Amino acid sequence: MTAPRTVAVSGAAGASDLFQLLRDGRPRTRAELAALTGLARSTVGLRVDALRELGLVEPVGESISSGGRPPSQFALAPSARLVLAADLGASHATVVVSDLTGTILARSQERRPIAEGPEPVLEAVVTSSTQLLKGLDRDLDDVLAIGIGLPGPVEHDTGRAINPPIMPGWDGFDVPEWIDRHLGIPALVDNDVNIMAMGEHRLAFRDVEHLLFVKVATGVGSGIISGGVLQRGAQGSAGDIGHVRLPRGAGVVCTCGNTGCLEAMASGPAIARQLREAGVEVETGQQVVDLVRAGDVDAIRAVRQAGRDIGEVLTVCVSLLNPSVIVLGGSMAQVGEHLLAGVREVVYTGSLPLATEHLSIVQSVAAQDAAVIGASVLAIDSALSPAGIDALLAG
Amino acid sequence: MTAPRTVAVSGAAGASDLFQLLRDGRPRTRAELAALTGLARSTVGLRVDALRELGLVEPVGESISSGGRPPSQFALAPSARLVLAADLGASHATVVVSDLTGTILARSQERRPIAEGPEPVLEAVVTSSTQLLKGLDRDLDDVLAIGIGLPGPVEHDTGRAINPPIMPGWDGFDVPEWIDRHLGIPALVDNDVNIMAMGEHRLAFRDVEHLLFVKVATGVGSGIISGGVLQRGAQGSAGDIGHVRLPRGAGVVCTCGNTGCLEAMASGPAIARQLREAGVEVETGQQVVDLVRAGDVDAIRAVRQAGRDIGEVLTVCVSLLNPSVIVLGGSMAQVGEHLLAGVREVVYTGSLPLATEHLSIVQSVAAQDAAVIGASVLAIDSALSPAGIDALLAG
Repeated sequence: MTAPRTVAVSGAAGASDLFQLLRDGRPRTRAELAALTGLARSTVGLRVDALRELGLVEPVGESISSGGRPPSQFALAPSARLVLAADLGASHATVVVSDLTGTILARSQERRPIAEGPEPVLEAVVTSSTQLLKGLDRDLDDVLAIGIGLPGPVEHDTGRAINPPIMPGWDGFDVPEWIDRHLGIPALVDNDVNIMAMGEHRLAFRDVEHLLFVKVATGVGSGIISGGVLQRGAQGSAGDIGHVRLPRGAGVVCTCGNTGCLEAMASGPAIARQLREAGVEVETGQQVVDLVRAGDVDAIRAVRQAGRDIGEVLTVCVSLLNPSVIVLGGSMAQVGEHLLAGVREVVYTGSLPLATEHLSIVQSVAAQDAAVIGASVLAIDSALSPAGIDALLAG
Repeated sequence: MTAPRTVAVSGAAGASDLFQLLRDGRPRTRAELAALTGLARSTVGLRVDALRELGLVEPVGESISSGGRPPSQFALAPSARLVLAADLGASHATVVVSDLTGTILARSQERRPIAEGPEPVLEAVVTSSTQLLKGLDRDLDDVLAIGIGLPGPVEHDTGRAINPPIMPGWDGFDVPEWIDRHLGIPALVDNDVNIMAMGEHRLAFRDVEHLLFVKVATGVGSGIISGGVLQRGAQGSAGDIGHVRLPRGAGVVCTCGNTGCLEAMASGPAIARQLREAGVEVETGQQVVDLVRAGDVDAIRAVRQAGRDIGEVLTVCVSLLNPSVIVLGGSMAQVGEHLLAGVREVVYTGSLPLATEHLSIVQSVAAQDAAVIGASVLAIDSALSPAGIDALLAG
């Protein structure tokens, strides 16, 4: 049998378990909390006080104004504490400040190539964070954690990038250690498509247990939510579908050195390359998006074929994972229905009925905010976890 | 933010949370339990008594013999209560009695085609269960639950088979309701490959977070453990890789009506058919196994090619799930290294290094016991869950 997590509810640590009850935001009285936990009223009082001191819980409701009597209801304080989130892309860095419900309070975006290396890029994150907090009239003492998305493979447990192809200088760099030294807060690091999946899930599909988020941009990758939980796999490479090989792609060389990879057939640059080969003057994925929006038939046809190629791989994903929602996101998803149509055409005809009868294939709702919302969620979930609260109480 | 499970630790229900601490089997004193939970010694005493009355917890250690003093240490009582488990295959039914650690105490196996329909098959399970319990000098009052594996798609939440192709009469049949009427215990139902994955995981790979169990027998299917948890997907069809289509299989008709499905290329009957087409006299998968064991070169070559075909699909599974272990089980896995060699040949050459550098591809350790161990685990995990214990306490 699995060994259950040992529940420590004695001493200050008990406040952490009490907080888990209050995380849903619903106000509760001390008496209700005592009844829910079986703890003495006096113990509940001490633990609520500890949480109020940390700014995590606040009195709510009419009783606040009732003179000398202590307030009778308490709930999560959504913005007494904050988190930071950074989406570091190949060329841009976006930084936001969010409250404890994941609502974005302030944001900045700047051109900042990830190839500048970890220290210049993270220094820019620190500068932006400080400015954003100042603009909100808040400071770093209010911040519980930072979530960071990187455009490459990340060992989530240690927060290090692992052999990232487009990130010179980042391989093995200890992001949490650097952040701890410069901001004094915990950093949670993951790859960009994982945090996009988390952001999309939390924003638009909170009750969906099984969701596959597919990013189609400079590369192609996916983030997997199974059983309501992001699945990273044994080495953090789960969802890495960009290098699955397609029979149709025989001979097409991929950046990974193999041939016929999905990414070499259906990414933004790959579609642009195919259009150039057909005589269309186009360099980037964004220009492909612009052509599709302008109604260019060649571009529409190329995007639809890319959707079919992605659909070939997603058909296997559907058999394996049986998701109820597939979300297409990333910059190329901005082309809208044409990409979706190609994906749907292949997935719905190539899968067994049981796996597709309740399957939706849709465009991202979170769109360009998916990553920063996801990085906020990553930071919040860690900071407000039992272990996170225990650390705050001990700190 | 996700709403955390409301922790109810008041009243009798509190004994359930206390039990979760004791599930690991380690003996603890009342004082240790009080310190771990923050509860009063007297409350701990009442809850321990409630668990002793249910036969879930027993006194252990030297203090038992110390005259009038109450015993000071308590632990899970592994065999004061039992579970039943049934593996219902296409042609055979295996029933076992297990203790609360999943150890098999007694077993029976009989020829019993699933096609006889639910009532005759389940009646046989009841008869076998009664006889096995009698042989152990125990009775149904000692049994907490039964886990049942069916050879087809199952809606796990309701325990109903859904459009099972080889199970006439079973479609929509309410197994838990029937079991409740005839045995008066909860029934947990799942498909055979899911319970095999659970059994293999618990027996041989308990600490592995990401495991893919592949059954190769009359059909081909898989069970997915991600994040330590069995993943069933939105409709319970996760892992259903038998109908992924292979380019090499163009024109080969599958039982599902499509062509080129993995199952039509690499299952036991499919390998036998290919050998017959090559002039070898062979009817069943078991005969193929026998030929391979006898060193027949054609059979070895066919099995190795089946391994490569399975490897083609598993390469995508590895990219998507990033497991650290792939286990090959089911009757065809008895051929041993030849099937494994084909799978390894394709998976290790066709995947990105990050996903395969720590990947083991091995033969099932649990072998023919995988299903009954898994069905026992399914029953135990449900019966000893907080909700299961709460139900017992409520009587």
